[in-house]
Amino acid sequence: MQIAILLYEGFTALDAIGPYQTLNPLPDADALFVAEHAGPVTDDNGTLTVTPAKTLAEVQRPDIVVVPGGPSENVEPQMANPAVVEWLRTADAHSTWTTSVCTGSLLLGAAGFLKGRRATSHWLALDALAGLGAEPTGERVVFDGKYVTAAGVSSGIDMGLALAGEIAGDPYAQGIQLMIEYDPRPPYDAGSPEKAPAELVERFRAGAAAQA
Amino acid sequence: MQIAILLYEGFTALDAIGPYQTLNPLPDADALFVAEHAGPVTDDNGTLTVTPAKTLAEVQRPDIVVVPGGPSENVEPQMANPAVVEWLRTADAHSTWTTSVCTGSLLLGAAGFLKGRRATSHWLALDALAGLGAEPTGERVVFDGKYVTAAGVSSGIDMGLALAGEIAGDPYAQGIQLMIEYDPRPPYDAGSPEKAPAELVERFRAGAAAQA
Repeated sequence: MQIAILLYEGFTALDAIGPYQTLNPLPDADALFVAEHAGPVTDDNGTLTVTPAKTLAEVQRPDIVVVPGGPSENVEPQMANPAVVEWLRTADAHSTWTTSVCTGSLLLGAAGFLKGRRATSHWLALDALAGLGAEPTGERVVFDGKYVTAAGVSSGIDMGLALAGEIAGDPYAQGIQLMIEYDPRPPYDAGSPEKAPAELVERFRAGAAAQA
Repeated sequence: MQIAILLYEGFTALDAIGPYQTLNPLPDADALFVAEHAGPVTDDNGTLTVTPAKTLAEVQRPDIVVVPGGPSENVEPQMANPAVVEWLRTADAHSTWTTSVCTGSLLLGAAGFLKGRRATSHWLALDALAGLGAEPTGERVVFDGKYVTAAGVSSGIDMGLALAGEIAGDPYAQGIQLMIEYDPRPPYDAGSPEKAPAELVERFRAGAAAQA
């Protein structure tokens, strides 16, 4: 079971690593990081430098596609990059599951996968997701057919575990959860716009609007 | 504020990325991945290949040290690696915070930092931690002086947020939580040995004992 995790300049690290850490332990899973070109790819902070195992051209029929997100200024060039969009279409033609974390869903949308489908994204990107024909939901992980989309950054862990359960059954996925000791205890309850202090939400919304 | 995240052959990816994603957004933070040698380092699955920004010799006085864990067969060689242990002692001599995730605490223990200190590790490594003179607790994140240790793999996210709050205040840390949309919804409640099905816990304990 080949799991292709797409990398591109300026991806967000945890978007990619959450699903990787939860899906790679599946039976017979072979996860690999793929990118348009063979050289190293750097994350959105310019700090994490990852060398992909293969180029997109070398991985045409993965069983599972995972698309991490990143800041909009990094995702938008990929939405307009024919090499990436065409690869997504090719890979999706035979995939069992096509998934995304955070603004990765905008890339699935750009490839045309989400028209009329329920889907999610980072809370600041739900309008952009609607603009691509999807029906954004406020859920953390959304299954619609073979398309699985997750909310912002850290939600890829929940997505990976939920998908692991679909693929290998609940006890197996519980084993993955136990081994990564995923018994979350956030020190605050500010992880969604509904729960965070309103002034924080407003500040980030204003920042995102100024950037757009 | 320099944040040095130690990499070594066979580290666990999420152990390193959880604290990275939560600490790097701190004001004036400069996170970087460091390793004994300059070349690429590969994680415990042989899948994620990361090129460190600097060698240990080049980073002598980080403000924050982050030590990820890995399977015991990957951590033990580092506990016996003078280059790593001496670097930890040098870096710790001036650090503001010295931290670990998962079995990374065994490396802190090997460097002599945890004698008589409350600390934690992956649930399967608590006995090994006690063997290094620490007082293991069942908590997910443990502060003892400037030493901050976290439980298995995914707990580095909680550790990073808690430390971010100590450093920059609660509202700032809440902003980090909101931007990574850390509002966890695990599909199961099996993330600790107290909560997971008993047969699963026993199977993993037996596997770890067979390996030891």
